[in-house]
Amino acid sequence: MAEWQFIDWVRNESQGQKLQENPVVLGPGDDAGIVKIGSSNVIAAADMLIEGVHFKLENTQPELIGRKALAVNLSDIAAMGCRPVCALSSIAVPSQHGLDVAQRLTRGLISMANLHNVALLGGDTNTWNSTTNADGRTVVAVTVLGEPWPGIRPVPRSGARPGDVVMVTGTLGGSLDQDGNGKHLSFSPRVTESRQLLEAGSITAMIDLSDGLATDASHIARESAVHIQLERISIPISRELDHLDADTRLNRAMTDGEDFELLFTAPPEVAEALLRDQPVQGLTISRIGICKSGPAHVSWEDGSVVPKRGFEHGMTT
Amino acid sequence: MAEWQFIDWVRNESQGQKLQENPVVLGPGDDAGIVKIGSSNVIAAADMLIEGVHFKLENTQPELIGRKALAVNLSDIAAMGCRPVCALSSIAVPSQHGLDVAQRLTRGLISMANLHNVALLGGDTNTWNSTTNADGRTVVAVTVLGEPWPGIRPVPRSGARPGDVVMVTGTLGGSLDQDGNGKHLSFSPRVTESRQLLEAGSITAMIDLSDGLATDASHIARESAVHIQLERISIPISRELDHLDADTRLNRAMTDGEDFELLFTAPPEVAEALLRDQPVQGLTISRIGICKSGPAHVSWEDGSVVPKRGFEHGMTT
Repeated sequence: MAEWQFIDWVRNESQGQKLQENPVVLGPGDDAGIVKIGSSNVIAAADMLIEGVHFKLENTQPELIGRKALAVNLSDIAAMGCRPVCALSSIAVPSQHGLDVAQRLTRGLISMANLHNVALLGGDTNTWNSTTNADGRTVVAVTVLGEPWPGIRPVPRSGARPGDVVMVTGTLGGSLDQDGNGKHLSFSPRVTESRQLLEAGSITAMIDLSDGLATDASHIARESAVHIQLERISIPISRELDHLDADTRLNRAMTDGEDFELLFTAPPEVAEALLRDQPVQGLTISRIGICKSGPAHVSWEDGSVVPKRGFEHGMTT
Repeated sequence: MAEWQFIDWVRNESQGQKLQENPVVLGPGDDAGIVKIGSSNVIAAADMLIEGVHFKLENTQPELIGRKALAVNLSDIAAMGCRPVCALSSIAVPSQHGLDVAQRLTRGLISMANLHNVALLGGDTNTWNSTTNADGRTVVAVTVLGEPWPGIRPVPRSGARPGDVVMVTGTLGGSLDQDGNGKHLSFSPRVTESRQLLEAGSITAMIDLSDGLATDASHIARESAVHIQLERISIPISRELDHLDADTRLNRAMTDGEDFELLFTAPPEVAEALLRDQPVQGLTISRIGICKSGPAHVSWEDGSVVPKRGFEHGMTT
């Protein structure tokens, strides 16, 4: 079973649930889910970081891991065009000095929470058991709950239409340096930027760039059933990659992943205004392509298919 | 740093957050948190199960692990006297056959969800990386969101008052057999039972028995600032322990943990009615003690302190 098959399977299973008065507004398969609780629409994102895949414990400060664990979830809420409200954090830490790791993780998480006015609502901390020979690796699983910004509707991946312009915030690639550090640990989730964008114009689809533009664009293409055509020359590439040749730079920008910028679509008249007015503070919006009718896929302007070679360890369902 | 110190520390940190319009109604330190989202009170519980501590992967069906991962969270929502609505599940699975494990876990989780009319809203699945020598153990982190039952207020751990009667549902001890199986994998979270209880009478404090009666009673004592006096003869002991001598049976009932029954307090007149009417279908409510004024602790009727020796690997914050 491949990863996309697993996600499809989860989706089918959840859609097959027989529930009295199904409260789900948007189920598995987007950046976050939406559920009706009482009279409110609650947005919920869950993302887990695991040692050796998303971070290296031996050369990363635990504070940065806790920070990232919350930030990736805030990025998901931002990609829905919503406001984060609170977070729950479940942690597994080594049996040696585990509570100190947990404390430092939590401190980093709270510092990020404070930046975005997010309350720590609770969680669960577990220590691997050394006595049964079952010591394990550090895991941080965070769930963030949010709500729509006043007057703004959540933006799914599925709303792109043929003719819509494809845009991205910031620059892409080079998120991970040779020591395992870099932007993937220190990025700012685009929470306020997402709001500024949505207050300036009506966005049809949005996703945060976690797996890399090649893969994440294919998610919008698939969910919206459109063909996304990208222009090589328009991809905004991070300065971190300046020392590389042109082909490598483009490839890295497409597939490095963990940029945590926003990829979104809007009708031409909205796009024109956004590109002209640049409403997002401190961040450039670039036009990188267009949505066309036809089988869902991502291609370059010459029709060649953009291969998905991004970071695919994490599978958001 | 000890575990209770860590939990106190998290609580202090979260209470120290400077937030605009703090949405938290009940923060870390109870069975679940309560947060205001829109105009609704949302109840949220997060609990993580880790291999080697909460289950053994080699002799447990993954379906049962997924079932338990949701059930422990449903038990927390039940202990708040609330209704579960939806769940998010984040999983880390081995690099070998990991997606099959994930699929079977999820299947077990959904079967439990269907029993309690809970929707699977989303999640995140991660595979340990074998190529960087970082293969790891299976982890399941579930968050459940809920809401108050119509007309019923959530019940915290902190509402017990001197004079209140201490009661428990069902029987205690023997949740784990020699093969690692037993009630801890197959228990039914007391969701409907909790509702039946609350519709019958006004409960002042409640907790689910996950760490064992000795430890969990001390949580109510501490949060409510009461002295809980238990009667040895009144502790309802599981039939699984019948083959043991009396002292061992009582000790096991107090400390085995993972009973997932409800421990609760109510004023004498409410308690009298509950014990007489037995409003919970299929489950006996037993009177096991009384709340007194005085320093927060748990004692026997002769004044000797009940030691906390329960299962303390998991620390709910």
